[in-house]
Amino acid sequence: MKIGIIGATGKAGVELFLEAQKRGHEVTAIVRNGAKARDLFGADVALLEKDAFTLTREELLNFDVIIDAFGVPLGTQKGYLHLDLATHLIHELRETDKPRIVFILGAASLLDGDQRLLKKLQTLPNHEQWIDVPESQFHELNFLNSVQNVNWVGVSPQRDFVPGARSGYVRGTDKVMYNAAGKSQVTTGNMAVAILDEIEHPQVSRERFTVGDK
Amino acid sequence: MKIGIIGATGKAGVELFLEAQKRGHEVTAIVRNGAKARDLFGADVALLEKDAFTLTREELLNFDVIIDAFGVPLGTQKGYLHLDLATHLIHELRETDKPRIVFILGAASLLDGDQRLLKKLQTLPNHEQWIDVPESQFHELNFLNSVQNVNWVGVSPQRDFVPGARSGYVRGTDKVMYNAAGKSQVTTGNMAVAILDEIEHPQVSRERFTVGDK
Repeated sequence: MKIGIIGATGKAGVELFLEAQKRGHEVTAIVRNGAKARDLFGADVALLEKDAFTLTREELLNFDVIIDAFGVPLGTQKGYLHLDLATHLIHELRETDKPRIVFILGAASLLDGDQRLLKKLQTLPNHEQWIDVPESQFHELNFLNSVQNVNWVGVSPQRDFVPGARSGYVRGTDKVMYNAAGKSQVTTGNMAVAILDEIEHPQVSRERFTVGDK
Repeated sequence: MKIGIIGATGKAGVELFLEAQKRGHEVTAIVRNGAKARDLFGADVALLEKDAFTLTREELLNFDVIIDAFGVPLGTQKGYLHLDLATHLIHELRETDKPRIVFILGAASLLDGDQRLLKKLQTLPNHEQWIDVPESQFHELNFLNSVQNVNWVGVSPQRDFVPGARSGYVRGTDKVMYNAAGKSQVTTGNMAVAILDEIEHPQVSRERFTVGDK
């Protein structure tokens, strides 16, 4: 499939790019900084060098699947850009079935017991410094849930989303999941495998699912 | 003040334009069809002839106040454009205090007794033909409620938003209000007066209020 990855040089994006490439898909890195992508993926990497906020309908329709792996650094108070990019991409894709578009959301919208994880995060010390990102991704899911005429899917990592290898994953729907060691965690490698599995064998449409380490 | 009105030639927009002009403001009609604005407001009307979805930050920052009076015709299933225009304008205005931006929302997000009016509307015969508009405006308010770094205000009409004259208005916060005749109604003239009053003497920030006929 023709897969475009927004934020391909970021934490989630790198593993996604490599996993998609390994499976033989025709992958394009959609990034602002082409040099970084060439360093990571080789000089012959397929590139669409653009600010994602300027992607047009015409450009997006070239792909079978778009993955929004855009992320802002914590501490910059630019979390709102997560929501704003989703609204831009959805607007450009209104009244289409293709491309399918995968949004990587945060874990804050997951249920932890009977409340949203976001509520817990909002009580942590110094949360003011980074809470803008989980809050924005929470609003992003609320926004997506209102969208009926675009073929979107949301994916939340577990509470800790850490760089790491493929070791087997479990899927959930909307809950924080704890592993045998009592941790709610997913590696970037396992997340990439789970997303490519969903792309190749769709199980949900216009829904969010979550992925944890086995 | 410098006031830009998106959709100045529409149902709500015409009265807003005339009311703002009458009060001595410097009013610009932001419309796709300049000819229609010249017919309505005279050959010397100040125009920004543009698709509102292409308005830039630079253009918006020229104004003290923007009023989003954009509307799609019922029955076209383009209701999502209400939400999409709000997300576009908010994105362009992130991290600003000026212009203040006024969004004319629908009545569906108001509480009627203990439930949203939207729930009632969704039970009416043939609602499938037009429910996309109130649903989108309901989602628009939810989206706006997540926005902390733009100086926005939302205004809902009452259930019946009808062309008509200035006859005195009452303000509310988030409820359907019934007049002496048992009707939940506001005229476009009363709405225009109430919005210009709010623009000249701000009472709320990042909130929605509602206007009904006295």
